[in-house]
Amino acid sequence: MIGVVATIRIQDGKAEEFEAVFRTLTAAVRANEPGNICYQLTKSKTEANTYKVLELYADADALKAHGGSDHFKAAGHGIGACLAGRPEIEYLDGVA
Amino acid sequence: MIGVVATIRIQDGKAEEFEAVFRTLTAAVRANEPGNICYQLTKSKTEANTYKVLELYADADALKAHGGSDHFKAAGHGIGACLAGRPEIEYLDGVA
Repeated sequence: MIGVVATIRIQDGKAEEFEAVFRTLTAAVRANEPGNICYQLTKSKTEANTYKVLELYADADALKAHGGSDHFKAAGHGIGACLAGRPEIEYLDGVA
Repeated sequence: MIGVVATIRIQDGKAEEFEAVFRTLTAAVRANEPGNICYQLTKSKTEANTYKVLELYADADALKAHGGSDHFKAAGHGIGACLAGRPEIEYLDGVA
């Protein structure tokens, strides 16, 4: 299993737009990626305009399928328009 | 929904012991906590002896039930014996 914690910082005033794009993406991930086990957007309680996506994939192929999916690519423009900087992606090894 | 990322640093040479205790805890969480949506131990790829637990709960009651559960308390001693410092617990607001 592979874990991902993606930290995303957005511009002031873009929360509603960002969350709407992410809502569509999340629904598509859950509906179309059998190798995705968890995909949840969360918001920091301490840092303004900062989100963390908690993600789990069955294996490297599942993670690759996520990154290469049409729905992930389709969300890129909408998410990109909200960003305040480059997302930080931390990859983690699942421990059985 | 509530998200948690718990960062746990353990002592050198304690990985096997720590992972065994956590394996038992994880099985009990998944079997006994209907309000727990995700509970997965992962290991850092970049920091030695460092683990992150990715957790999702339906609501505050579910998180409270986790912390107050017999299985969580029972794992405390075994986990505590492995720690290299105080765990860092980050609480996050789930975004629907």
